[in-house]
Amino acid sequence: MTGTVIANPPRNASVAIVGAGDYIGAAIARRFAAEGYLVFMGRRNGDKLLPLKQEIEAAGGRAEARTLDAREEAQVAAFIDEAEAAAPLEVAIFNVGANVNFPFLETTARVFRKVWELACFAGFLTGREAARVMLPRRKGSIFFTGATAGLRGGSGYAAFASAKFGIRAVAQSAARELGPQGIHVAHLVIDAGVDTEWVRERLRASGADEERALLQPSSVAETYWALHRQSSDAWTFETEIRPSTETW
Amino acid sequence: MTGTVIANPPRNASVAIVGAGDYIGAAIARRFAAEGYLVFMGRRNGDKLLPLKQEIEAAGGRAEARTLDAREEAQVAAFIDEAEAAAPLEVAIFNVGANVNFPFLETTARVFRKVWELACFAGFLTGREAARVMLPRRKGSIFFTGATAGLRGGSGYAAFASAKFGIRAVAQSAARELGPQGIHVAHLVIDAGVDTEWVRERLRASGADEERALLQPSSVAETYWALHRQSSDAWTFETEIRPSTETW
Amino acid sequence: MTGTVIANPPRNASVAIVGAGDYIGAAIARRFAAEGYLVFMGRRNGDKLLPLKQEIEAAGGRAEARTLDAREEAQVAAFIDEAEAAAPLEVAIFNVGANVNFPFLETTARVFRKVWELACFAGFLTGREAARVMLPRRKGSIFFTGATAGLRGGSGYAAFASAKFGIRAVAQSAARELGPQGIHVAHLVIDAGVDTEWVRERLRASGADEERALLQPSSVAETYWALHRQSSDAWTFETEIRPSTETW
Amino acid sequence: MTGTVIANPPRNASVAIVGAGDYIGAAIARRFAAEGYLVFMGRRNGDKLLPLKQEIEAAGGRAEARTLDAREEAQVAAFIDEAEAAAPLEVAIFNVGANVNFPFLETTARVFRKVWELACFAGFLTGREAARVMLPRRKGSIFFTGATAGLRGGSGYAAFASAKFGIRAVAQSAARELGPQGIHVAHLVIDAGVDTEWVRERLRASGADEERALLQPSSVAETYWALHRQSSDAWTFETEIRPSTETW
Repeated sequence: MTGTVIANPPRNASVAIVGAGDYIGAAIARRFAAEGYLVFMGRRNGDKLLPLKQEIEAAGGRAEARTLDAREEAQVAAFIDEAEAAAPLEVAIFNVGANVNFPFLETTARVFRKVWELACFAGFLTGREAARVMLPRRKGSIFFTGATAGLRGGSGYAAFASAKFGIRAVAQSAARELGPQGIHVAHLVIDAGVDTEWVRERLRASGADEERALLQPSSVAETYWALHRQSSDAWTFETEIRPSTETW
Repeated sequence: MTGTVIANPPRNASVAIVGAGDYIGAAIARRFAAEGYLVFMGRRNGDKLLPLKQEIEAAGGRAEARTLDAREEAQVAAFIDEAEAAAPLEVAIFNVGANVNFPFLETTARVFRKVWELACFAGFLTGREAARVMLPRRKGSIFFTGATAGLRGGSGYAAFASAKFGIRAVAQSAARELGPQGIHVAHLVIDAGVDTEWVRERLRASGADEERALLQPSSVAETYWALHRQSSDAWTFETEIRPSTETW
Repeated sequence: MTGTVIANPPRNASVAIVGAGDYIGAAIARRFAAEGYLVFMGRRNGDKLLPLKQEIEAAGGRAEARTLDAREEAQVAAFIDEAEAAAPLEVAIFNVGANVNFPFLETTARVFRKVWELACFAGFLTGREAARVMLPRRKGSIFFTGATAGLRGGSGYAAFASAKFGIRAVAQSAARELGPQGIHVAHLVIDAGVDTEWVRERLRASGADEERALLQPSSVAETYWALHRQSSDAWTFETEIRPSTETW
Repeated sequence: MTGTVIANPPRNASVAIVGAGDYIGAAIARRFAAEGYLVFMGRRNGDKLLPLKQEIEAAGGRAEARTLDAREEAQVAAFIDEAEAAAPLEVAIFNVGANVNFPFLETTARVFRKVWELACFAGFLTGREAARVMLPRRKGSIFFTGATAGLRGGSGYAAFASAKFGIRAVAQSAARELGPQGIHVAHLVIDAGVDTEWVRERLRASGADEERALLQPSSVAETYWALHRQSSDAWTFETEIRPSTETW
């Protein structure tokens, strides 16, 4: 995306995005930056976030990029603390994916564990650390990017579905406990391929109409923004989004 | 509510609301009127809609009130046709409730049938008639107001849950068929008491904190507006809303 | 099936089967007759049940055939009362299907209502009337034959899915209310074509391996028998069955 | 339980039970031993299984007890291989629990990981290793003991629900892949306290009628036996059991 527009004056509030990758994570960063938030972005290789940080800053926004292995408890705690120190943490978004497909017998213990660490354990750490700094204010949003695999285990998806089911359980348990304490926890089910180069190539190969079959990262970001704006008398825990053309 | 503000110029588009009662239906009417839509409102006794119609008109909006028994196919067809004739129908919302609770043995055949006719059959008619006028344009939104009883049957709820399960199935079937044809069908699960006089009295009797325990009709309306604004690459079929204080 | 074998001596107990058609209903009748129950069978045209009645009697069992329109409250009440009068009603099974598929716009109000009356309203009446005679003894089983369409509304299934969702809600509400009173209510989800001439023809036309793709009526009957035998510390409300070859 | 009765002659087939604890696991061992199976039992401290092994042998059955840390891939593989070498593996049952409840902020990374390793990762290893030896014969059953927490996350259950959701996803993915290859994978949802000393104490403290509120381990075992006996045209993937008195 070119042309991030910062529509609002700076707020004294930060948004932590764990898994601020090239597509959804970046779109979320742009969306909240446009609203005046200080955006704290973490990913495995923080250097890759520098162009996005520069883009946001060039548009008049504020962003920080950090190298973060979200499977490491101390790193997650430090990342959240640093965001909180810069500006009160108002939103935390966990957006790490790890989609793999292997026949059941070829799913190694190493893969099964690694997918869980990336897509579930890291999400638990992110949610817990964010709750830690938000609870004293009884205010904040903690959102998790989910997938259809979090609702349905398909052939070949023992590792991925297990991790996505697992993080959905974390989100649901946290929502039930933290909601009455003022923290809005939500789980967004993305039921389609998101517009990335990799997905486009696969669609082209299959002959599908790629323009109509793809979820735009900006639409995912827009949904997160809408969730965050909900008033506390009408919070959504779970919602799903898919293109109009999707079969489900 | 006093003080409806019409924020937008008139659009050449109508919104049909079946079950435009005093609370949720009225809030939806105000919300879409504020966006410049011509609001077509139907309920059993259309005269009761006149104050709302006048309020919207006084604020500069456009609204029509009709007496409508939504269980009657010909009446629903005529209502939709009349809305369409006034301005192209862009949104149809089915919002008829019929919450009853009876022990299983005391649930009469008459009650069981009537609740179904009100909460399910009438919704089917509304959805089908709206689809009929929207499909040639491959554009439009058809939304159904659901309840937790649409997902879970409870003791004493054989009649009500059965009707709410039934309309959810209609919504889901229609969404799968009509989505690829450009019609956005959604089902909104309301998981709490909505702020009405009747609910407030029950809460007072139970000693609950009524201010924090109630969903505001305007929040339901806001959610419908957000659903209608979704871009077609990221449509939601189902979402649920509840107050932060709700136990679920 | 030829060769019904009555394995057990007569019991002073009856089983009412509403929708005792040629396949599943007949298999259930044979299964319970084999256990010594008096089997009370009802269907639209009771004469069609006479060969089955004769088969069961020839094998040493007991069966009664009745003409029954299960949408008529008085007829259902009389059917249940007659079964109860002959021998205490221990099991009631609702097994009426009404599978239809129409495009949403071509689903007439007449079809929508009729499918609901057959597959949902009649089931409610059956369950309620059975509960009425069972509750004084705090003992009995009330089972409903469900389908995948009771869990998922697919394109073209607005009428059928709506009715099947609806009867599932009745079953769930009744189970929650009546379970603690000693009545075992269950809902069996059949997720495949059952072996009937009509289904075989469709499979042949599609080139599928019909022998492996079909659920046998006797297997459905066996599952109902297993549910009825469960001890009250370990009751199942819902279970699903499908062939090993089924994709789901 | 005293008085295991071995009702059937020995079969050339083994059953592997991972998590053959004092209650459910022991009941399953007795049930399959009674049918003539060689029962291979593993738990953290294998010595504790010796009384059960002796009881089964005294009744004329066959059982082996092994010390097994089911989180260790090599140990699980060796356990399964040893069972297979003794007699073809026909059934594998994963029955390891790890029920904990902690406030979200007090759920340590260590606990979260350990619960997952015990209740999810170990189950994945058990299922995969069992499938490895069963698939060449295209025959066998792999069953997982689940809990309500596998379907619904609750306050305080982030760790436990996450692990139980995760193993349910493994079971579902495996069922979809392995079913058409002749392997019956099932997930049994236990929705109540099972009759153990610990649960009885809690019930006594709460004033509940402990006799009626408890699921008997033998009933769980009976359900597994019924699942294993299902013919392949009518397999169940998921079923739930609860006492008649349970509120759900």
